[in-house]
Amino acid sequence: MKEEKVYDLVIIGAGSGGYEGAIYAKRRGLKVALVELSKETLGGNCLNRGCIPSKHMRHGAYLIEKLLNSEYFGFSAKSIETSMQKLSYHRDKIITSIRENFSKLLFQLGIDVYFGKAKLNSPNEVLLEETNQLIRTKNILIATGSSPKHYGFSVDQKRIFDTDGIWSLTYFPKRLLIIGGGVVGAEFAYMFQMYGSEVTLVELKERLMEGPYIPEESSRFLTRKLRKLGVDIKLKTSVLELKELSDSISVSFSDYQKAEFDCVLLALGRSPNTSGLGLEKLGIKLSDGFIEINSFCQTSVESVFACGDVTSSLMLAHKSMHQARVAIDNILGIKTQKEDDIFIPRIVYSAYEIASFGISQDEAEEEDLKVGVISLSTNPKAMDDGEAEGFVRVICSNDGKILGCHILGPNAGELLHQVLHLYKSKVSAFSLSNSLFTHPSLSESVIQAFELALY
Amino acid sequence: MKEEKVYDLVIIGAGSGGYEGAIYAKRRGLKVALVELSKETLGGNCLNRGCIPSKHMRHGAYLIEKLLNSEYFGFSAKSIETSMQKLSYHRDKIITSIRENFSKLLFQLGIDVYFGKAKLNSPNEVLLEETNQLIRTKNILIATGSSPKHYGFSVDQKRIFDTDGIWSLTYFPKRLLIIGGGVVGAEFAYMFQMYGSEVTLVELKERLMEGPYIPEESSRFLTRKLRKLGVDIKLKTSVLELKELSDSISVSFSDYQKAEFDCVLLALGRSPNTSGLGLEKLGIKLSDGFIEINSFCQTSVESVFACGDVTSSLMLAHKSMHQARVAIDNILGIKTQKEDDIFIPRIVYSAYEIASFGISQDEAEEEDLKVGVISLSTNPKAMDDGEAEGFVRVICSNDGKILGCHILGPNAGELLHQVLHLYKSKVSAFSLSNSLFTHPSLSESVIQAFELALY
Repeated sequence: MKEEKVYDLVIIGAGSGGYEGAIYAKRRGLKVALVELSKETLGGNCLNRGCIPSKHMRHGAYLIEKLLNSEYFGFSAKSIETSMQKLSYHRDKIITSIRENFSKLLFQLGIDVYFGKAKLNSPNEVLLEETNQLIRTKNILIATGSSPKHYGFSVDQKRIFDTDGIWSLTYFPKRLLIIGGGVVGAEFAYMFQMYGSEVTLVELKERLMEGPYIPEESSRFLTRKLRKLGVDIKLKTSVLELKELSDSISVSFSDYQKAEFDCVLLALGRSPNTSGLGLEKLGIKLSDGFIEINSFCQTSVESVFACGDVTSSLMLAHKSMHQARVAIDNILGIKTQKEDDIFIPRIVYSAYEIASFGISQDEAEEEDLKVGVISLSTNPKAMDDGEAEGFVRVICSNDGKILGCHILGPNAGELLHQVLHLYKSKVSAFSLSNSLFTHPSLSESVIQAFELALY
Repeated sequence: MKEEKVYDLVIIGAGSGGYEGAIYAKRRGLKVALVELSKETLGGNCLNRGCIPSKHMRHGAYLIEKLLNSEYFGFSAKSIETSMQKLSYHRDKIITSIRENFSKLLFQLGIDVYFGKAKLNSPNEVLLEETNQLIRTKNILIATGSSPKHYGFSVDQKRIFDTDGIWSLTYFPKRLLIIGGGVVGAEFAYMFQMYGSEVTLVELKERLMEGPYIPEESSRFLTRKLRKLGVDIKLKTSVLELKELSDSISVSFSDYQKAEFDCVLLALGRSPNTSGLGLEKLGIKLSDGFIEINSFCQTSVESVFACGDVTSSLMLAHKSMHQARVAIDNILGIKTQKEDDIFIPRIVYSAYEIASFGISQDEAEEEDLKVGVISLSTNPKAMDDGEAEGFVRVICSNDGKILGCHILGPNAGELLHQVLHLYKSKVSAFSLSNSLFTHPSLSESVIQAFELALY
């Protein structure tokens, strides 16, 4: 029989936040345990049904698109054939391999992992429901993630999918309807369109990826590009009815149009997984369904912390990792504070790579801040790579405090990090003017944008 | 007749350093003129015959390689056909377009441009030789670049090329010999091999890219990969004789082997363009053929500065830009100092992207510094992209001072910038542990390498 331990920290959920948090805590000397539903769900939604499978398919889509423009590089390739079997085979291998790496590292670091459904029994006890095992701990971190919303649509994961089920598809549907033009809908639209589906994307709001996190300008660029690639985008439109026929799904839209599709994908956002955890009994406060946390990622119960999708509607793997680290720092007595969601970077991988963090152009104008914008159309590296579309926009205060950066273009996601680290380290934008960079590089445009903002 | 002006700064050479320097100086209020041989050479070697044409062809080579592995992404494309005509057409369009952008920006900023061969007449006068026009100025910046070395081989730019002439090639030679396994040789070997040539690369030294700037480990990775792609690499071997036959070139190697090739490319390094400038007459000191500069990029004559290829054997466009900015800062009275060459970033674009700056692993071991290495083989984004080969190595002092970074893998060049800016801003590596990053991203591996170094 296992000797009873008291952990410093038990983390519920081994998704991005929970997994990374466990490693971060262990490396800093905490006695830590991780609880996850099963071996197969280790890594959570991001690894198994989210970012990891979608970035793989997205890179394939990107390559197919490049191939269609290969004359620019003096070669041509004929007769592109796609195979969902092969795509899935390699995708599953990637996921399995990452999951095995995760297990291996947890083992190497000596992190205890428990499998099963867990709930909070007290502020210092986690109960494994099936075995009735009680795990005692000084602190608890809730990292249970989220699940797709269906809004009353009946999802059978055969012809009508949510983003969890879509990965079981064994073919590329000829006609695919995606309901929801948020980030995830815009990403799937690009991927399936490039793999040969005819995609229709329907969105209730007046632009794609509406909200505070993605600039209107980026939406505009992406909408134009997706349309150019053949995606039928219907804005300010809703779906009134889905009618399943024997070999298709008949769809009525609010603009009085009707159309038939082979498959439908719901991309309608996600709900936090907060039920069944015993939160109410402990008096842990929720707000709009999310667990309320303070700037130290602490809930209304002192020893209980929360991170990731359960804390707010900005549901990103690395937000969860960030909040997990903040929670652990505070358990360690280091008073780190979490970033406001607006300063959490977000990357869209669609027909463009779109990266953003910090305040928007509109706010910058209101507050009379310094803004520098560089078009990628004259960036030599972007021209060489045949991807000279997009921009870098930086925002800083008059005394050089970095307040935001919005990039659309090749490798926008990786490029953003050079600004993120400077923001996080409170480095003045003025110090960048004489920084080092390589030529030709996309990064030059980042420096140039700051140069324009300041001089 | 033009009214005689006295400039604050006349820059000789409108290559990367001269061009960027002119803009930097003008934006900071200096009265500046730029002298260049002709309209057609504006932008210098980098734009017209160096990094810009080669990055274009390299991206094509990279895409061809990806295509050969497209099953990983569930698609296949048959019958790749290459066309040098199409490649050159688009390359020339890119170059022309960048050159036009350069001209436009110089004009918009009101920078005077003179065309013709120039020499220094005095510490404050530049003479245009053909027109005998004298330009008076407070300061001079020499940015005249470099030219390919031939080492006695007779270059006809028809079958035996240097890296200036290779761009006139109208076909992909079936059998190509590249003499010189430095960075440029390694880059061309990859490009021509992927476009269908059978490439032999011969290098006198015992490894590719030998010297202090590229780690031995990176050479090893690259050699293995190039060989896997079919490049015949001969190390510790020299060429004894090139014999031109009617339809081939017969080559004798020092290992007693003989072989026939259709074309030969010399990649034997470059000599600084310092002759005919009147340096001796003014008493400007040279050393090993390079113009001697102090840490302010100032020559032995107070009003004369130099930047780029004329100053040392690390010949990189952005080294020249950096030194130009340092020189101008000092003209402005800001006592900026130039980086030692070892801290200038260098990127290799061959079968891998290889990025390096700062001290080496060996030096780190000698001085008992902190080193963190992460393999990209477990980076989820690299796995998704089918490019999970390579590493990130970071080096810092025990108190967190960043001293070097060596990356081999996809986008190594752009990734390096996030470390470069932190180095340049003197940010402690410790502050990175709690920085923001996105998941999945290649940039995660950079943070993880620091985390490993420090914890």
